[in-house]
Amino acid sequence: MKGFFNLISTQQFTELFCKFNELARERIALADGLGRFLAEDVIAPDSLPPFARSTMDGYAVRAQDTFGCSESEPALLTVNGEILMGRSGRGISLRPGETARIWTGGELADRADAVVMIEYTNQVDEGTIEIFKAVAPGENVIQAGDDFRQGAPVIARGSRLRPQDLGVLAGLGITEISVFKKPLVGIISTGDELVEPHRRPAPGQIRDINTTTLTGMVLEAGGIPLQLGIIGDNHEDMLHACRAALARPVDLLLLSGGSSVGKRDFTLAVFEDLEQTDLLAHGVSIRPGKPTILARHDNCALFGLPGHAASAMVVFYLFVRPLLHFMSGARQTDLRRLIATTGEQIPSAIGREDYVRVRLHYLPGNIMPVAHPVYGKSGLLKPLVASDGLLKIDRDCEGLDKGEQAEVLLFP
Amino acid sequence: MKGFFNLISTQQFTELFCKFNELARERIALADGLGRFLAEDVIAPDSLPPFARSTMDGYAVRAQDTFGCSESEPALLTVNGEILMGRSGRGISLRPGETARIWTGGELADRADAVVMIEYTNQVDEGTIEIFKAVAPGENVIQAGDDFRQGAPVIARGSRLRPQDLGVLAGLGITEISVFKKPLVGIISTGDELVEPHRRPAPGQIRDINTTTLTGMVLEAGGIPLQLGIIGDNHEDMLHACRAALARPVDLLLLSGGSSVGKRDFTLAVFEDLEQTDLLAHGVSIRPGKPTILARHDNCALFGLPGHAASAMVVFYLFVRPLLHFMSGARQTDLRRLIATTGEQIPSAIGREDYVRVRLHYLPGNIMPVAHPVYGKSGLLKPLVASDGLLKIDRDCEGLDKGEQAEVLLFP
Repeated sequence: MKGFFNLISTQQFTELFCKFNELARERIALADGLGRFLAEDVIAPDSLPPFARSTMDGYAVRAQDTFGCSESEPALLTVNGEILMGRSGRGISLRPGETARIWTGGELADRADAVVMIEYTNQVDEGTIEIFKAVAPGENVIQAGDDFRQGAPVIARGSRLRPQDLGVLAGLGITEISVFKKPLVGIISTGDELVEPHRRPAPGQIRDINTTTLTGMVLEAGGIPLQLGIIGDNHEDMLHACRAALARPVDLLLLSGGSSVGKRDFTLAVFEDLEQTDLLAHGVSIRPGKPTILARHDNCALFGLPGHAASAMVVFYLFVRPLLHFMSGARQTDLRRLIATTGEQIPSAIGREDYVRVRLHYLPGNIMPVAHPVYGKSGLLKPLVASDGLLKIDRDCEGLDKGEQAEVLLFP
Repeated sequence: MKGFFNLISTQQFTELFCKFNELARERIALADGLGRFLAEDVIAPDSLPPFARSTMDGYAVRAQDTFGCSESEPALLTVNGEILMGRSGRGISLRPGETARIWTGGELADRADAVVMIEYTNQVDEGTIEIFKAVAPGENVIQAGDDFRQGAPVIARGSRLRPQDLGVLAGLGITEISVFKKPLVGIISTGDELVEPHRRPAPGQIRDINTTTLTGMVLEAGGIPLQLGIIGDNHEDMLHACRAALARPVDLLLLSGGSSVGKRDFTLAVFEDLEQTDLLAHGVSIRPGKPTILARHDNCALFGLPGHAASAMVVFYLFVRPLLHFMSGARQTDLRRLIATTGEQIPSAIGREDYVRVRLHYLPGNIMPVAHPVYGKSGLLKPLVASDGLLKIDRDCEGLDKGEQAEVLLFP
């Protein structure tokens, strides 16, 4: 295969994900769940709320006792006690014409079916109130099970847990959850010219950037980065480093640099020489990021990424992060996206997808943001720092005019 | 002030942030920098790249030696060696008519000013190549300092560091950075009816949700959550808990529940009774979230949040998170936002800003997503789990028709 690419589309590349199985699972405390992927559907073990609750400070009533009342003809009700917070409201049973004081979140009294807000009442004496506004049954009340009835689905498997999801689980008394294990992701930078960031480069040398950016992206994606250092452009050293990584074992291995088809590009040959390793793809019809390699060893995904930081980053966000999320059961694996209008003409070429780094400018009013391309040769870093996301230009599009609508994938 | 709100607008509320000073700084390893806020402008200590580099595999040339060449009339150049990766290219000096083999990322030879891609060359013999395509000076070359010249600004103070930002700093050899300390955020849930999530609620009791959701939101915002437990609706207990939190000291204190104007709402009175504490606001003209309190004790911000999980969350994202980011020097403190079209009519009332929970539906093609409101009483949790963000309806707007454009703040 050396010497040329076998270009596939992004969709074909993404279809290769099905060659990989889901990660193993583990049970963790709910408190550690932020950003983790649920490994099982959560079903409500109890109804939430467990009882009918008032949503207001006021009086629990039988709604029919308020029908027809008004400012000029208030309903007179006898106050049969106060429902204390944290105590059962069922201890008080309302007879016709009776009411009970209630607070936001309190349990309704027995036979009460609505709550009158305090603002629409007047205390006549110790034991009597006037009500100025009728309420319908159920008004200002959340019924038992209104959120989730016992046995109802709460959060689906594969969801990446957000604060509100954790809150709902806490509310249901679920304090331990089953999640997919965090994938261990090995990171290797290749290149004879690279030195570690803390070292001063000699003439012709340059500091390694990809280990740092890929580490950050793996963390954001929910993985555990494992920095495996810099390897020179040498087939034996790279083969040895890959074997060592697979023996740990890592769930995913990222090699940046050397993924193209030149004389000094060793990644493909190294993957081909690895035992029990299937080469799945070499080359994707995108720019930047064409020289991308995907291979499989058991359930470990091996990626050959371009050496340029910008290209490696695009490939990470288009394929590596989605594959990590796919292996965590996620159904939605893309970056977040929005529609923007282009701030200037953006050329492209038919036959490949372009991902143009853009900066978004927000305007006042409900108007789409404007995406301005941040150009720069692919070896440059400044455009990455200056941009908010990637504007996608489809394969069958020759480019966009100024003011056209386009999809922008947002950097996390 | 008890008994009524003193409503202010979101803008007025946000203007109160200037009462608070920035957090203290600390120096940390670059490797720990993801998601941290830079406390100083970073200036390039050296030029990056440090030397002129090739962006292609090919031949370093003096561009003028290629002028006028073509497929039919190739230029013939004498090969004066190979520039090894990681070695200085300046060791080879090109005389007129000479070239040197070079690889992607290699340093240009002395007197070379462009690179011809390998694809446009042919090796005639050991020491001679033909070139079929002229190159302009600078072609396929990144010049020294093209990314950042020595002394140029790289990343601005207040930036929240992303993987690519860390990569650039690594590339510049910056392995330690000055960042704002993570704010310590105390979290207290108030309510006689609340029990901890691992406990089984007795009749009239309910599990605490806000401690869990607020903890997750603080983590996402870059703070350190400090769970201070559940306090009953009792002035003395709440006062004591606040004093203990301020003594730690926390940078921000969140009390959820009891922020309204009812008889059992103690937060305002507690803040008023705290020593050296200024009350800054009580009430914001938003829905949900109207009963919001902000006070200041030294540089600690004290928030009284509504008890309903949905309301507390809206207030957190509209004010707490922005204030945390403001105290970290950030200039952009809002949630990310996009423009969507409404999937149905959404009513609102003039005089207050509405934040409607919505679920986004993405359509094929470069079309704005459609925002569908997820309705539910404010005490319910399910709408939070089902939604992707908050659709904003301005104060002076009576509601939106189906198909109108509206701004959606995306949940992180």
